[in-house]
Amino acid sequence: MPRHEADVVIVGAGISGLIAARTVLAAGLTPLILEADERIGGRILTEEVAPGLSVELGAQWIGDTHHRMFALAAELGVQTYPQYDQGETSYDLVGSGVLRENDFHAQFADELAALERVFRRLDELAAEVPPEAPWLAPHAAEWDAITAGAWYDAQGLSPVARTLLEICTVGILAVPTVEVSFLHLLFTIQTCGVTSELFAESEGGAQTTRFLGGTAEIPNRLAALIGDQIVLETPVQLIEHTADSVTVHCRGGVVARGRRVIVAISPTLAGRIMYDPPLPGIRDQLTQRMPNASAMKAFFVYDEPFWRADGLNGQLISDVGPARMSNDTCLPGDDHGVLLMFLEGEQARTYGRLPVDERRAALTAELVRHFGDRAARPEFYIDGEWADRQWTRGCYNANLGPLVWTAYGPALSAPIGAIHWASTDTATYWSAYMEGAVEAGERAARQVVEELTANAAPLP
Amino acid sequence: MPRHEADVVIVGAGISGLIAARTVLAAGLTPLILEADERIGGRILTEEVAPGLSVELGAQWIGDTHHRMFALAAELGVQTYPQYDQGETSYDLVGSGVLRENDFHAQFADELAALERVFRRLDELAAEVPPEAPWLAPHAAEWDAITAGAWYDAQGLSPVARTLLEICTVGILAVPTVEVSFLHLLFTIQTCGVTSELFAESEGGAQTTRFLGGTAEIPNRLAALIGDQIVLETPVQLIEHTADSVTVHCRGGVVARGRRVIVAISPTLAGRIMYDPPLPGIRDQLTQRMPNASAMKAFFVYDEPFWRADGLNGQLISDVGPARMSNDTCLPGDDHGVLLMFLEGEQARTYGRLPVDERRAALTAELVRHFGDRAARPEFYIDGEWADRQWTRGCYNANLGPLVWTAYGPALSAPIGAIHWASTDTATYWSAYMEGAVEAGERAARQVVEELTANAAPLP
Repeated sequence: MPRHEADVVIVGAGISGLIAARTVLAAGLTPLILEADERIGGRILTEEVAPGLSVELGAQWIGDTHHRMFALAAELGVQTYPQYDQGETSYDLVGSGVLRENDFHAQFADELAALERVFRRLDELAAEVPPEAPWLAPHAAEWDAITAGAWYDAQGLSPVARTLLEICTVGILAVPTVEVSFLHLLFTIQTCGVTSELFAESEGGAQTTRFLGGTAEIPNRLAALIGDQIVLETPVQLIEHTADSVTVHCRGGVVARGRRVIVAISPTLAGRIMYDPPLPGIRDQLTQRMPNASAMKAFFVYDEPFWRADGLNGQLISDVGPARMSNDTCLPGDDHGVLLMFLEGEQARTYGRLPVDERRAALTAELVRHFGDRAARPEFYIDGEWADRQWTRGCYNANLGPLVWTAYGPALSAPIGAIHWASTDTATYWSAYMEGAVEAGERAARQVVEELTANAAPLP
Repeated sequence: MPRHEADVVIVGAGISGLIAARTVLAAGLTPLILEADERIGGRILTEEVAPGLSVELGAQWIGDTHHRMFALAAELGVQTYPQYDQGETSYDLVGSGVLRENDFHAQFADELAALERVFRRLDELAAEVPPEAPWLAPHAAEWDAITAGAWYDAQGLSPVARTLLEICTVGILAVPTVEVSFLHLLFTIQTCGVTSELFAESEGGAQTTRFLGGTAEIPNRLAALIGDQIVLETPVQLIEHTADSVTVHCRGGVVARGRRVIVAISPTLAGRIMYDPPLPGIRDQLTQRMPNASAMKAFFVYDEPFWRADGLNGQLISDVGPARMSNDTCLPGDDHGVLLMFLEGEQARTYGRLPVDERRAALTAELVRHFGDRAARPEFYIDGEWADRQWTRGCYNANLGPLVWTAYGPALSAPIGAIHWASTDTATYWSAYMEGAVEAGERAARQVVEELTANAAPLP
């Protein structure tokens, strides 16, 4: 059976694991990445639907404050381009009928002003949450004992404003707000800065910028730097560990030995590995309580972005159809029009289990209502489900329910002997985003490098 | 490497797996149980603290409506005896100070009457929940979209009544009510009959009867019937399956082949096994959302049950100390006095992580307040934590948070090809109890036997 040796064994070849490997390499140590899937990239998946025409079934955008990702793209020679944001969004909320953005804002001005005040209040409260230790927030116990949904319900918002707030939030969390602790919501806001960064109805915030050639260029070029120290199709089953060594056993008999291991997969998947000696109860019960969310993306590809000529930006926000939101995701230098429909939370669960034709038909009906009959005649359709993917099991990330942060939070990223934890779910800045994956991978690798090098040189 | 063959491979030697094996045997087929732990019994653990003096660190009682368990005990020749229930309970709630039961009931008569009305309302609503399919309840969507805690908060109860309701419920669920869907609470009530069965403040309901010689007599005698078809210390890592065969791979290289597999462990642990082909997303995301609860038991053993002479029954109900409830758990034919303190939910999490001396000291202080100074002088102290146990990872069972039943419930016990599911968490009658474990084991085995025998004889 193949045996490997490395200073640092890394579980998972998503961005977090790849960044960890690069950081380990830069420190003069040897990494080895074990990836369960037949591909690298984790929750990044660029799929070519026609020559030169690709869609992002996974991570797609970065935002202006994603400093690590901008630096990484520049370093790797991956060019960026701005998200298209000209024109109006199309709304249909709580029986309003289809309304263009200006009309919607005029008709519901007071309600939207009230919603704006709720966002400001969320910003104030989130500012009290230390992102590296949310359980230490002054009101952590109180905020962790209610759901985000219950807090929203208590704000006295009108149905339209409350519905819009739910859609914006589910667009981030990919689960209904009743499944999430209010403290977790505040943590999420705080790791991203302010609500205007996170919940941008119009473009901006987390979705300003895309990568030329596809998001997969980032992991692909990172992997090229790491070379043959990545082993695919090698699911980790058991990590034996001492204070200063690890032996990682994989399906099929592959064994990798190292001095440290960085587990760079989502917490729920990390919890499925056997550890010997077993991990403490607090860590195990935490990973039982970090379910991955439910999101899928569906793409309609047309001969041209016909909605632009109508003064529309390709976005819809609606509580009618299976998708609550859409985006214009055309590619630069390509004439096709590409619309992305998001199915998140209950919509992903319900429609994700239907036959693709039924799902497509329901999505098409909603598109036609907002963008007209041409929306019914795409050249291509493709969608991507993540819960069915064995080595991902849900997107975008893990959300914590009531009382999880305060009871179990300290176990999220604290190393256990030779075992360190990465993945964007452990990040303190843009957790759940690619930006957070980079932070977490760097942080875990620095911890390991500091432990392994007596006089570690400063890392890049 | 050892290779095994059997008609039905069973994962887990708790009551559910043992009952499944017995049912398979009775049908003339061959079972093989693979148990990860070095012992059988699962969440049953009878520990001898002195010659002839044992305590139950796990399951302890059965109730009058646990018909399968009474029949099983009789069949196995295990005698039962009644729980001691003479005398008054001792209360201390919301600053009331220590009050004996009669005084407590007199002082808070109106508040307790209001609580009684809430129990009646719960009974009415629970009666609408089909235990085999809670998601089909007429108001399932509404009830699954709120937490049990939120529903409780809306009942207008006084602080004393609300606190008592929380303590009674946490005594069943072992997690705070804000972590649990209201639909799940109603399901739990319905599988047990009515609230008076489940939430019995005084003895009765689920805790009327114990087993002579210890609860472990049940799994031990079942295992004796099954003989050498139980393999210990063999954690299952991978189940390869076709429509009509399974190959089960275990740590250490043990391989077992069979025609069906029954996975008789809690859903969160079942979700840690690799399956090839992988299971559908709905099943995987369900097991991500069924965390085991947090409970531990602590026993104080005295030279005699001194509280009985004071007219006390050994029970306390309090929101002061680390234990919210206690019980007299003396053994028949033994002079010792044994008090059991329950740490459940947040108390188990907080105090379970303290050094044992600190935990014992905090529990002792609470006992002394209710039962006097003699409570500070036990002959023995022992407690048992379940989250740290690698092959259990929490007690008593799994609770479902908001929207899990309605989105994922159908995947809980539905077979997937040759894979069938047992464990008390899949039961429809006294789910989470030993009674449910028997039902689930029998049900899964009957499904398998029916599939494997063309003209199956009626089973016992």
